[in-house]
Amino acid sequence: MTQDSPQDKPASEAKLWGGRFSEPTDAFVERFTASVDFDRRLYREDIRGSQAHAHMLARVGVLSEDEARRIVDGLDVIRDEIAAGEFDWQVGREDVHMNIEARLIERIGDVGKKLHTGRSRNDQIATDIRLWLRAAIDEIIELIRSYQSGLVDLAEREADTIMPGFTHLQTAQPVTFGHHMLAWYEMLERDAERLRDCRRRVNVLPLGAAALAGTPYPLDREYVAEQLGFDGVTRNSLDAVSDRDFAIEFTAAASTLMMHLSRQAEELVLWTSAQFDFIELPDRYCTGSSIMPQKKNPDVPELVRGKTGRVYGHLTSLLTLMKSQPLAYNKDNQEDKEPLFDTVDTLLGSLRAFADMVPNLAVRRANTLAATTRGFATATDLADYLVERGVAFRDAHEVVGRAVRLAQERGVDLAQLSLGELQQLSAAVGEDVHGVLTAEGSVAARRVTGGTAPEQVRRQVAAARARLAAAGDQSST
Amino acid sequence: MTQDSPQDKPASEAKLWGGRFSEPTDAFVERFTASVDFDRRLYREDIRGSQAHAHMLARVGVLSEDEARRIVDGLDVIRDEIAAGEFDWQVGREDVHMNIEARLIERIGDVGKKLHTGRSRNDQIATDIRLWLRAAIDEIIELIRSYQSGLVDLAEREADTIMPGFTHLQTAQPVTFGHHMLAWYEMLERDAERLRDCRRRVNVLPLGAAALAGTPYPLDREYVAEQLGFDGVTRNSLDAVSDRDFAIEFTAAASTLMMHLSRQAEELVLWTSAQFDFIELPDRYCTGSSIMPQKKNPDVPELVRGKTGRVYGHLTSLLTLMKSQPLAYNKDNQEDKEPLFDTVDTLLGSLRAFADMVPNLAVRRANTLAATTRGFATATDLADYLVERGVAFRDAHEVVGRAVRLAQERGVDLAQLSLGELQQLSAAVGEDVHGVLTAEGSVAARRVTGGTAPEQVRRQVAAARARLAAAGDQSST
Amino acid sequence: MTQDSPQDKPASEAKLWGGRFSEPTDAFVERFTASVDFDRRLYREDIRGSQAHAHMLARVGVLSEDEARRIVDGLDVIRDEIAAGEFDWQVGREDVHMNIEARLIERIGDVGKKLHTGRSRNDQIATDIRLWLRAAIDEIIELIRSYQSGLVDLAEREADTIMPGFTHLQTAQPVTFGHHMLAWYEMLERDAERLRDCRRRVNVLPLGAAALAGTPYPLDREYVAEQLGFDGVTRNSLDAVSDRDFAIEFTAAASTLMMHLSRQAEELVLWTSAQFDFIELPDRYCTGSSIMPQKKNPDVPELVRGKTGRVYGHLTSLLTLMKSQPLAYNKDNQEDKEPLFDTVDTLLGSLRAFADMVPNLAVRRANTLAATTRGFATATDLADYLVERGVAFRDAHEVVGRAVRLAQERGVDLAQLSLGELQQLSAAVGEDVHGVLTAEGSVAARRVTGGTAPEQVRRQVAAARARLAAAGDQSST
Amino acid sequence: MTQDSPQDKPASEAKLWGGRFSEPTDAFVERFTASVDFDRRLYREDIRGSQAHAHMLARVGVLSEDEARRIVDGLDVIRDEIAAGEFDWQVGREDVHMNIEARLIERIGDVGKKLHTGRSRNDQIATDIRLWLRAAIDEIIELIRSYQSGLVDLAEREADTIMPGFTHLQTAQPVTFGHHMLAWYEMLERDAERLRDCRRRVNVLPLGAAALAGTPYPLDREYVAEQLGFDGVTRNSLDAVSDRDFAIEFTAAASTLMMHLSRQAEELVLWTSAQFDFIELPDRYCTGSSIMPQKKNPDVPELVRGKTGRVYGHLTSLLTLMKSQPLAYNKDNQEDKEPLFDTVDTLLGSLRAFADMVPNLAVRRANTLAATTRGFATATDLADYLVERGVAFRDAHEVVGRAVRLAQERGVDLAQLSLGELQQLSAAVGEDVHGVLTAEGSVAARRVTGGTAPEQVRRQVAAARARLAAAGDQSST
Repeated sequence: MTQDSPQDKPASEAKLWGGRFSEPTDAFVERFTASVDFDRRLYREDIRGSQAHAHMLARVGVLSEDEARRIVDGLDVIRDEIAAGEFDWQVGREDVHMNIEARLIERIGDVGKKLHTGRSRNDQIATDIRLWLRAAIDEIIELIRSYQSGLVDLAEREADTIMPGFTHLQTAQPVTFGHHMLAWYEMLERDAERLRDCRRRVNVLPLGAAALAGTPYPLDREYVAEQLGFDGVTRNSLDAVSDRDFAIEFTAAASTLMMHLSRQAEELVLWTSAQFDFIELPDRYCTGSSIMPQKKNPDVPELVRGKTGRVYGHLTSLLTLMKSQPLAYNKDNQEDKEPLFDTVDTLLGSLRAFADMVPNLAVRRANTLAATTRGFATATDLADYLVERGVAFRDAHEVVGRAVRLAQERGVDLAQLSLGELQQLSAAVGEDVHGVLTAEGSVAARRVTGGTAPEQVRRQVAAARARLAAAGDQSST
Repeated sequence: MTQDSPQDKPASEAKLWGGRFSEPTDAFVERFTASVDFDRRLYREDIRGSQAHAHMLARVGVLSEDEARRIVDGLDVIRDEIAAGEFDWQVGREDVHMNIEARLIERIGDVGKKLHTGRSRNDQIATDIRLWLRAAIDEIIELIRSYQSGLVDLAEREADTIMPGFTHLQTAQPVTFGHHMLAWYEMLERDAERLRDCRRRVNVLPLGAAALAGTPYPLDREYVAEQLGFDGVTRNSLDAVSDRDFAIEFTAAASTLMMHLSRQAEELVLWTSAQFDFIELPDRYCTGSSIMPQKKNPDVPELVRGKTGRVYGHLTSLLTLMKSQPLAYNKDNQEDKEPLFDTVDTLLGSLRAFADMVPNLAVRRANTLAATTRGFATATDLADYLVERGVAFRDAHEVVGRAVRLAQERGVDLAQLSLGELQQLSAAVGEDVHGVLTAEGSVAARRVTGGTAPEQVRRQVAAARARLAAAGDQSST
Repeated sequence: MTQDSPQDKPASEAKLWGGRFSEPTDAFVERFTASVDFDRRLYREDIRGSQAHAHMLARVGVLSEDEARRIVDGLDVIRDEIAAGEFDWQVGREDVHMNIEARLIERIGDVGKKLHTGRSRNDQIATDIRLWLRAAIDEIIELIRSYQSGLVDLAEREADTIMPGFTHLQTAQPVTFGHHMLAWYEMLERDAERLRDCRRRVNVLPLGAAALAGTPYPLDREYVAEQLGFDGVTRNSLDAVSDRDFAIEFTAAASTLMMHLSRQAEELVLWTSAQFDFIELPDRYCTGSSIMPQKKNPDVPELVRGKTGRVYGHLTSLLTLMKSQPLAYNKDNQEDKEPLFDTVDTLLGSLRAFADMVPNLAVRRANTLAATTRGFATATDLADYLVERGVAFRDAHEVVGRAVRLAQERGVDLAQLSLGELQQLSAAVGEDVHGVLTAEGSVAARRVTGGTAPEQVRRQVAAARARLAAAGDQSST
Repeated sequence: MTQDSPQDKPASEAKLWGGRFSEPTDAFVERFTASVDFDRRLYREDIRGSQAHAHMLARVGVLSEDEARRIVDGLDVIRDEIAAGEFDWQVGREDVHMNIEARLIERIGDVGKKLHTGRSRNDQIATDIRLWLRAAIDEIIELIRSYQSGLVDLAEREADTIMPGFTHLQTAQPVTFGHHMLAWYEMLERDAERLRDCRRRVNVLPLGAAALAGTPYPLDREYVAEQLGFDGVTRNSLDAVSDRDFAIEFTAAASTLMMHLSRQAEELVLWTSAQFDFIELPDRYCTGSSIMPQKKNPDVPELVRGKTGRVYGHLTSLLTLMKSQPLAYNKDNQEDKEPLFDTVDTLLGSLRAFADMVPNLAVRRANTLAATTRGFATATDLADYLVERGVAFRDAHEVVGRAVRLAQERGVDLAQLSLGELQQLSAAVGEDVHGVLTAEGSVAARRVTGGTAPEQVRRQVAAARARLAAAGDQSST
């Protein structure tokens, strides 16, 4: 995306962009329209797709076996050249396809010209991106699983740790830290599901659509699909070369994932503030200040929170790109790759950081407990206690309101009100009332499916581990 | 969204919004924070959820059977009141939940106060929206199916109709109109799939999460889920009340659907221009001009194209809403409903319009054919012909370039070049060359899966019909 | 935006949207394409523009004086009808223009038909929106001024109140609460400037562009502009009817304004949490919980924070709408109004709420001071002290790092380290060192322009008041 | 944005991102949080700001003259090193500031440590970006002026060229090609104005805000502002380090500019289609097809249209970034630079391409004229003619409708209906009627300010030239 960095220019050129007359128009246009600077990232997929295409052309008799072999071998060599950094990418050859094909012809001669039979760059690029994105999705899901696994371990470790549960950032009810970590786990679980659903729609072969109308050559598309691990082939050639839904769907799923990380980041930043002081992050995820020596800044959560905008932006970009485009292929679509690449890089970096950082945080359990008892967090429990003893919920709600006001006036927590005081507020209060007014009693009572009780948290931990194991088995087959 | 329309005010108040001092602060705050003006749209779902909750409370012994019956019956009456327009919605009661509950207590007395036992507005609203959105998705999918069905019929009708296939809006190769309609069908097929995937994640019951931590009452959440047709229950109470992924995922799928309609709309607008003149739209989807009597404007496609922005905007809105929100519930989330409602309304209206309009368009076949023959659309066919006769593709490409230049100079189409002229360009040209230079020959040759050949189009029509029938069976069970 | 609320339907129609076959197609299309449900909000502006047009037509001789008078009077009556709620808006008449014109002809007969001479709905609607938006901008700026004025008063009141200044949400350096309020003031100052700049581009008259090409009638556009308070007339008719830049520019300025409010909201929510406990909001801007009686939720800041997404969404919507639209007018543009209306409503509501709420918050000064002394907030001051005594900044930074670690180990603040301890860390420490280690000393020293010193805050308060007074004078002329 | 391109890795590492365990965590975190890979682009501005800071520190006595001179000279050398590509950028030094400062200390010793006195990276980066963006805006405005100048020349050349004016992409009324080009000019005029307004808010000096609270050193901020060409200094230190409004405002203005280019691109693509065939683009802005030899694709307009999404995306990204951020500086803000850089690069490239391409297009005047006469484009003129002769506009509208239907039935244009036929439709038709039915007559009559008449176009050309000359004078001073 940084096509024209000034640092690449001699000092005499002070213009941001080299100045508008410093380059002949033709060279400018060539560079402006070329994509090889970024699409060469697809070289592995491009070569793999070409090799499968060559095998198939031999199978259906368009190429001889020998021709196909020479093409496949030549492409192997080129991939090694590129991987070794010895390939001469030329902007005049526009894109990754033309660069590789031209090099192939240089190496193996005229037979190389036969490779492009029955295909077009339109179906070729769609195939390359789908192959690349499929692998990216698999790697992202693997990192999600790794992060989830760390969260589950942390949840188990902190299954009994009391902390305030917040609504409106006000103390609401006691929860356990482990329960909170499982909420994060659930967010990620939906992300992984969405990515799996997306992968199904990515994993369809467009090759064979040619430019837009299909091809008169007797291609065996199903054979190519099988070689490349696609689940099937596209059913309409016009659609196949113009469809970029998969990029949008992926970026939308990525936006939701980043949104989840932004929420987790927000909480990590809050919890490391001096005011909350609920957790400590591993040192290597924080930095000091150039001017304020006492600071320990939660850089990584903040940065990930900031990167959310980046991914949202890519989604906006792709949706805008496709809006109102007539079929079939338009040059506009060259702009689909950079947002996709950067989205994948952002997800991998952010997930890696969180997968290592979060499970290694330390909870300051004394602080989370103290914060819970300060906030009348068991007021609802008192209400529920009254309801169980026959008071209508809305009436119980009012009694508790009066109890809170009394405790506030007295500067104490609800548990510190005497039995007499409580009974004056409601005749339904019995001698066992103080049992429900402690944070421990409160959380233990919430045993309903999905509730915050430690026993429930442990049950969900076990279930989550089973799901992760099943997902691991699935992906390794 | 139009909270404060000036037309509702007396003429003496010229201020847009009633002026900032025309209303006491308390009344202003009450109105500013209330949601009943829009969330009352959920009244059916709210009542249905409450009735299921009441039945369950009786089942687990929190209510007596009689209490539950009185609540359920009371709610039935209230639903009828609302449906009949006789319900007195009060902004002072904030939202749909409080309005209905307060009315219930008015009608059936103190027993009504027991309904709210073991739940909170936090899990209640999440349940209501999910119920509502599930029904909306079903209706949208049904309309997609209806539109697809019309497209398939149109595709069959126009399976042999030749038109230019475009890339870069330049004539590329001949295709058939039916083939083009099947490209539209495919877009919609992915939309329906995405919505089905989204529906699975919508269709999970949050009720039982209570405010954020679960509840000490022995709720039978699975029983409620079953009554309400949910596939399962949420597994973490903090997540359950804070999760709005389903709204984002739905709006993202909706954005892609609108993007598809915008592309179709763009083509309809192009095709009805005097310059293309490929089709005629039914009169009722067009309007005249207040000043230019000769105009027939494709209003409906244009309007739908414009509405794309609306849905993209709602997606942006929801993603922004959720970014960086700490758990669990925050008042911000009140803003989730209007974008969702308007997205659904926009989709239903746009799909209905297209489902009726597009299948009833008339193709001007003479025009689409004439446009095809004007644009050297069979140039690729000539190249393919040469390749089949042993010329390397890249060399064939050059020969054809020369043929096109010759034809341009002569002011004729490729098919009008003589055999001698063509043979001068390449010795590989044989006497059968003119067979591949017609548009009919070109399309007929593209029999590969997904290609534009009429026989292939008919095969895809049959397959699409089978899928639609299967989908119909599925949804009716 | 809620075109089809189910509550308006009889109970027997359970469909979300009335079902797709419950209405004949023609009626559906009429309603789908009509805009009168929302554009009637522009009736005052429409009538005002028509009256100016009629006066001008008389001036240039296209109408007689009597004809113009009858038209103008007729429109006066219609405006009163609408304001009184007695106007029969008809969806069959499509929009605000046709409804009013048709009613005019009903009332005054054939002379009413002459009003539309030399104009089109294309330039008419552009004129209406510009008039409406100009008034909206003026009202928004007035509310910004009101809010700024309250912030300046609050800043003065809290000019000496010490609080922690945060970076990375970590305690960084002491600042004053008044200084913080002036930061908010500055954000709003830029918002007001941007809106004033936007207003200049809004305030240009498009009328006279007619449908797209201008008109053969000898219109006096400058005269109309003068009557309606426009600064000038548009210079190109094609551009005049297709330009919606003003809506985008306004919505972008509105997005930045909402972003500012979201930042202030975030801080208000933080500061009202039990952990920070820096401020108390007026009760009427908060609500209780339906289930947790002890809660006092900062609803209004949260809601405003949530509404940020709404306005961002409208910006996305309008940018998408205009992307790739060919000139001149397309039906797509009908979609420009609702985002604009809702943006204005959202700004007015949010600003009104903040303008009243924020200046009435109470600062818990003991808490903000205590938080400051807990966080080593004067560490930078120690570094600066050392630099002044000849230590290089980077070296001083290291000394302070050691001092902080020592204090942390001892569990005290920097000011509580003894002279001897400090001198062991650096020989440059003198007997006056404790003077810079108090929060009061720290803030008092930052007297540089824009710094946090109380005397600097008071100077900025005075300057801000002068600017506000100047702005008030300007707008009242 | 492409942090981790697989092509930089050996072939054995097949992972997209190098795999999540291929790098030790610390090295990963260092790289993940560093910004030097992109912010080094600001090195000139960083050095220039540091030099001004050093001069000022000497002026107020914090540095000696000799110290300041050594710092300034040392920075000169470093700038030359960087420009020559000989600077060793180190990711371990995080960002451009620390890289340069560390290098300075290496070169000139301990005196280099004094440079950072009284400032922080927080105000330093804000200063750097503002300096950089100011220069970028100037260069963009210069390119806009260059493009506008070319449009004005083209408008003059084609002032008499008749073409169809479109609404709803339907032929509406005749306009001139020159008039259409002036519509494009007007769009750009507003863009330049908005950028000038934005520049005023960019051009304010934040340096002196230090980390967030100002500084106790007696800095002369106004002196620094003067040296660096800023119009003034920021008035609040908290705001100064947290404000990124300028980036949002710039990106919003850039989005509108790209939207304009997308509309122009759309029209260029339409006009080069075989169906319109209104213009020919210079060859160097088009490409051929790898498979369809006859194609001449309008690549550059399509690509620019596609790049619109890119800039919209950056706007979304920055708005999301800033939403809900508490004051003052957070690490999130590191994400502000890449969107800004890429927006500038995209604008410069797109504007350069259009500034050279559009003025060199060739209009196919015979085609634009023929298209005009085919579409009943003078129907409005007939209506206006009737109105001038006393027919009420709405009645005239109906008469013309009948005339169009008659001509359609007869397969002729309105001008080809006989006097008798026209008089049968309305008694008001006189013998001069055919004068208004030609396209030339139609455009000539639209002499109103901003109308399409050639004389009016020439007047606007002259006025535009005067404005461009004035703008040129302004910017050169």
